Amino acid sequence: MNPITLSPIGRTRCQLKTRDETPKNYTDSNEPGTLVIDPQYLDALDRIEVGQTIVVLFWLHEARRDLLKVYPRGDRSRGLHGVFATRSPMRPNPIALSELKVTAIRGNEIDVLGIDVLDGTPILDIKKSIGPDAK
Amino acid sequence: MNPITLSPIGRTRCQLKTRDETPKNYTDSNEPGTLVIDPQYLDALDRIEVGQTIVVLFWLHEARRDLLKVYPRGDRSRGLHGVFATRSPMRPNPIALSELKVTAIRGNEIDVLGIDVLDGTPILDIKKSIGPDAK
Repeated sequence: MNPITLSPIGRTRCQLKTRDETPKNYTDSNEPGTLVIDPQYLDALDRIEVGQTIVVLFWLHEARRDLLKVYPRGDRSRGLHGVFATRSPMRPNPIALSELKVTAIRGNEIDVLGIDVLDGTPILDIKKSIGPDAK
Repeated sequence: MNPITLSPIGRTRCQLKTRDETPKNYTDSNEPGTLVIDPQYLDALDRIEVGQTIVVLFWLHEARRDLLKVYPRGDRSRGLHGVFATRSPMRPNPIALSELKVTAIRGNEIDVLGIDVLDGTPILDIKKSIGPDAK
């Protein structure tokens, strides 16, 4: 199949500098951070509001792409799992998915709670949440 | 920012041949389909089971990438919205996100319910569901 080319729409700014201090999932995180969106996409942010939960897709630029099986959360007692049956950051296309609460908006900067990625992580997309948690 | 290169992990096989007949979201769909995964990723499917809900990321290969505002679901009465405040297929990086119910597995083919993309749509990733709907 033909390769696909993406350009990040922005980058994550947060206090998480190492994997050890980074929550394993957004469901475990109350970490604040800021989605710094490229100003060329400012119009695409229209109608995002404080208090909403948004779906954010990140590009895990430091993740290994060559592993097909992992121990979920590094727990060897659970045995190896196919990466597609886990939320491991390691996968052929390392895109992460988080649902984040919007706490403030300043132009092209969106403050959120629930960050589970490293400072500097590229952002690929933002979507309205439509799950049962949607606000 | 540097561009990112992805390779699809497989393709969608389903009866949806035109946009008009395609449900707007997985939450509106009971459409069956099959995720045909490239055999090189067979090990990565280990532990996906019938009855589970899986998160699937698709590459919307026919979507426009140059629009920053849209009428959600084509409904002009709602006014224009920034694409990042919607689930529109049109967005700078047209990645779609669906939660699909697994109904059968045959090697590298996974039958699912809830399809909301066209036949032939490339698949980028599969993840365990961790939301409140996870089974």
